[in-house]
Amino acid sequence: MVLDYLQRGDVKYLFGIPAGSVNAFFDALNDMPQLVPIVAKHEGAASYMAAAYAKYSGGLSVAIGCSGPGGTNLVTGAANAMREHLPVLFITGAVPVGTMGLNASQELDAAPVFRPVTKYSALVKDAKELLPELVKACQIAVSDVPGPVHIAIPIDVQHAEVGQPELPPFPTRKPIIPDLETIRQAAKELWKRKDGVILAGQGIRGSVDVLLELAELLQWPIVSTPQAKGYIPEDHPLFIGVFGFAGHEAAAGLIADGGGQALLIAGSSLGETATNNYNASLAKGRYTVQMDFDSTAFGRKYPVDLPVLGDINLSLLLLLEELRALGAKTERPKALPHPAKKPKQEALRLEYNTQNALLSLQDRLPAHTRYTVDIGEFMSYAIHHMKVLESDSYSINVHFGAMGSGIGSAIGSCLAEPERPVVCLTGDGCFFMHGMEILTAKEYGLPILFVVVNNARLGMVYHGHSLQFKRTHPSFEQEEVDISAMAAAMGIPSYRASELGDLDSPAIERLLGTKGPALLEIALKDNNTPPMGDRVKFLSSFGK
Amino acid sequence: MVLDYLQRGDVKYLFGIPAGSVNAFFDALNDMPQLVPIVAKHEGAASYMAAAYAKYSGGLSVAIGCSGPGGTNLVTGAANAMREHLPVLFITGAVPVGTMGLNASQELDAAPVFRPVTKYSALVKDAKELLPELVKACQIAVSDVPGPVHIAIPIDVQHAEVGQPELPPFPTRKPIIPDLETIRQAAKELWKRKDGVILAGQGIRGSVDVLLELAELLQWPIVSTPQAKGYIPEDHPLFIGVFGFAGHEAAAGLIADGGGQALLIAGSSLGETATNNYNASLAKGRYTVQMDFDSTAFGRKYPVDLPVLGDINLSLLLLLEELRALGAKTERPKALPHPAKKPKQEALRLEYNTQNALLSLQDRLPAHTRYTVDIGEFMSYAIHHMKVLESDSYSINVHFGAMGSGIGSAIGSCLAEPERPVVCLTGDGCFFMHGMEILTAKEYGLPILFVVVNNARLGMVYHGHSLQFKRTHPSFEQEEVDISAMAAAMGIPSYRASELGDLDSPAIERLLGTKGPALLEIALKDNNTPPMGDRVKFLSSFGK
Repeated sequence: MVLDYLQRGDVKYLFGIPAGSVNAFFDALNDMPQLVPIVAKHEGAASYMAAAYAKYSGGLSVAIGCSGPGGTNLVTGAANAMREHLPVLFITGAVPVGTMGLNASQELDAAPVFRPVTKYSALVKDAKELLPELVKACQIAVSDVPGPVHIAIPIDVQHAEVGQPELPPFPTRKPIIPDLETIRQAAKELWKRKDGVILAGQGIRGSVDVLLELAELLQWPIVSTPQAKGYIPEDHPLFIGVFGFAGHEAAAGLIADGGGQALLIAGSSLGETATNNYNASLAKGRYTVQMDFDSTAFGRKYPVDLPVLGDINLSLLLLLEELRALGAKTERPKALPHPAKKPKQEALRLEYNTQNALLSLQDRLPAHTRYTVDIGEFMSYAIHHMKVLESDSYSINVHFGAMGSGIGSAIGSCLAEPERPVVCLTGDGCFFMHGMEILTAKEYGLPILFVVVNNARLGMVYHGHSLQFKRTHPSFEQEEVDISAMAAAMGIPSYRASELGDLDSPAIERLLGTKGPALLEIALKDNNTPPMGDRVKFLSSFGK
Repeated sequence: MVLDYLQRGDVKYLFGIPAGSVNAFFDALNDMPQLVPIVAKHEGAASYMAAAYAKYSGGLSVAIGCSGPGGTNLVTGAANAMREHLPVLFITGAVPVGTMGLNASQELDAAPVFRPVTKYSALVKDAKELLPELVKACQIAVSDVPGPVHIAIPIDVQHAEVGQPELPPFPTRKPIIPDLETIRQAAKELWKRKDGVILAGQGIRGSVDVLLELAELLQWPIVSTPQAKGYIPEDHPLFIGVFGFAGHEAAAGLIADGGGQALLIAGSSLGETATNNYNASLAKGRYTVQMDFDSTAFGRKYPVDLPVLGDINLSLLLLLEELRALGAKTERPKALPHPAKKPKQEALRLEYNTQNALLSLQDRLPAHTRYTVDIGEFMSYAIHHMKVLESDSYSINVHFGAMGSGIGSAIGSCLAEPERPVVCLTGDGCFFMHGMEILTAKEYGLPILFVVVNNARLGMVYHGHSLQFKRTHPSFEQEEVDISAMAAAMGIPSYRASELGDLDSPAIERLLGTKGPALLEIALKDNNTPPMGDRVKFLSSFGK
């Protein structure tokens, strides 16, 4: 019944690991070939897969784990989905109702553990309540600001006979329609100011075209947050670059110089990485309009002159309309490259370093490749240096920053959009945490290229400590492991690059042509300081 | 200051992963060479290491992770330590107090997440409160029924100057002294009954000699719970075997036949696995004395005639004394093998199956080897078939049952008792979840033999579904991976056994003689039904 209902919501995959306390579900799958369990190696990774699948399929996705350890292993993924506003239903098994408190195998009351990291978390103790609770949880997951929910289902409740109850329709999200008067006022306020800056956060995903039209109408430059890297193609003349973590000087300069009388924030909650550590210049002296679908995002750190609550796509569309109404007579001149955006002079790639390795690799990949970027030193290079050739081409999880999440994201993304090439950029630390999921990709025939930048150390920690404390601890570094040889032993086509020229090797073509996953190891200890100085400044500001 | 205080408590290791939000601790370690961070590949595994270290060192141990994902990755380990009554202090970083609620990198209020799975969980927002909170948390961890505690320490609180506060002494556990009158009554009631049965749970760890003396005085047979496997050497004439999950017929028969007028339960909370699924015969018709240090263990499922609250070693010692006082005149005859215990006729090992493979392996290992047994099909064989030659030789985590926990346990055990050989029995599922910790063992030079029974499927799930539903789902099985080749690629000495004779190979000596870890893969798809029928019966009893 649970699975029947989920199929009404177009759920195609269950991400997780089977076990005794969820055996009713896994047995039922024998009769439902159209519902495929993606059996991962660790539930944590399954939860990242589910999150990425929700993001790129646009629907609810489902992660499943047993009572006890399977449930708790999903908690990181719930917290991650919460931060990313992704509708993931977490299902965990639970010991039979009559044995609660009696130390049955893997007993754990998971509901209170999930509660702080989900929108809703409940234990269903009565089979009659199962369907209503499930419907409620799905409803909450997809509504308003979407997010994860959790229900724990005891073994006996899973198996209880409840007949054939009528399944209600699967919930759909009602859009949050912005107040028209507020939009009108925003249009008026923005239009009357000669210049301004647009800060685009991850909320603009799916609304990039409208945002660009708006920017063109206003002729205002756009900067994006690191998390929104990849939404705006970099050749757009008004796009300046990334502001915040690993961001660009031109963007920082634009914000710092006080230029622009207005600031339009679209879909950013203005966290640490999005604001260059709560940089005071951001809103200072600028009339600030903040658009968000989450009312709690307003006024957290920065006073907002005009908050616009509503779905970003609607707010932008309506704002565009209102601006057109205002600007019909006074259309501004056509977009030219903004002065803050100097044409990039690409340096000759001579040194074997992370920047050059990533750019050389990117040269060989299709423009619509999606990069799922994991957490580590390489992430700052990806944000700073890699090109954005098509929209929605990066999945960067700098907010919650869960190591190994990029690996799960690659799998979720590949399942949701099978036609789009997926490259996972990860590091040795992340690989040792969740790299066994490459076997999951193999088992399901997913043609993902996993690129492991192997510096035999926790690079971000290493450089962070070097910068802040002028010393590092030996435990941050490890004896190098030949990760491409590991992959080969796992039956995964692999190649180890150990100099820049290797990235031109025909071996790379071979990796791209496989039916399943492949692994490219970039063995490289980069002693340059990564473009993450802001994070260190932030951390250091609390130091001695 | 935090680390200085922990050193007073003989803390020698910090198990975890460094990150920005705990950088003050990791930087301070540069000046404290006697405090060694064990940098794991996944915080979850670090938490299992910390639990085993607490268990085998007898003191408090410490796990550390960053704010956000590092913290949530530790939650499974906290729940595990809670179930195992192990004093582990979980330290997590947190975003600076002034930025809480502002979406700083990896922000998460971890305290409420840890609360349901620890004895105490707090966020320290004021540097002046740090030491008092730390002392309080350590006190709670080691007191009464020991268990895990958690404190979240924001970055700015870590770095705050607090001068040189005087460090209070490190807390020690005050024993729970049983009530003497109750002991006396227990002695009287037990002595006046001619025969009885002793059920030994994991609480007898460290009190095995006293328990055996007691059994000899009473001339009563002993059965142990699965979790207590390995505490009582199997050659003791009164020891019958394991009762409960994967247990022995002789033990089940003894309980079922209603023999014995009394039941003495020592250190078991009588959960599912310890009671053969809450078997009604256990206490039926028997005068029941239950000894435990946890008052909540009494009367959960079984009515107890006489609960004895107190530390097991004290309760047993005092009971022994009282019995001696009563029995001075009527000493019972010397222990002879109990009739329920037929001398084992060891079958010729012909078939290449899990049972024979484990026994053949055990023949080659020293008697005092400690086996840390992970979760899977092989676990039921280890409980049922492997020999107990010396006390405290098995670490079996059948309660919480976290896959991969045996791998972390091996590392924690090896660090706590470096002179004792450690063999980790694990499977392919567990290896793919946390097997990268073998690299951690390598980095710290720990001579552990990791034995991976590789059946290319989730064996317990596979057999469980076969037995209960008469069908399995294809997702339970995977294409076989050559795990010994993976280990070789990781620079770990390894060997792949694929028939029974391979376990006599001189290659195994080579694995045992290494300075660091080694890996023995037992490639074996065992289609026999594992001795786990009771678990399936339990699960099936709730099925359709």
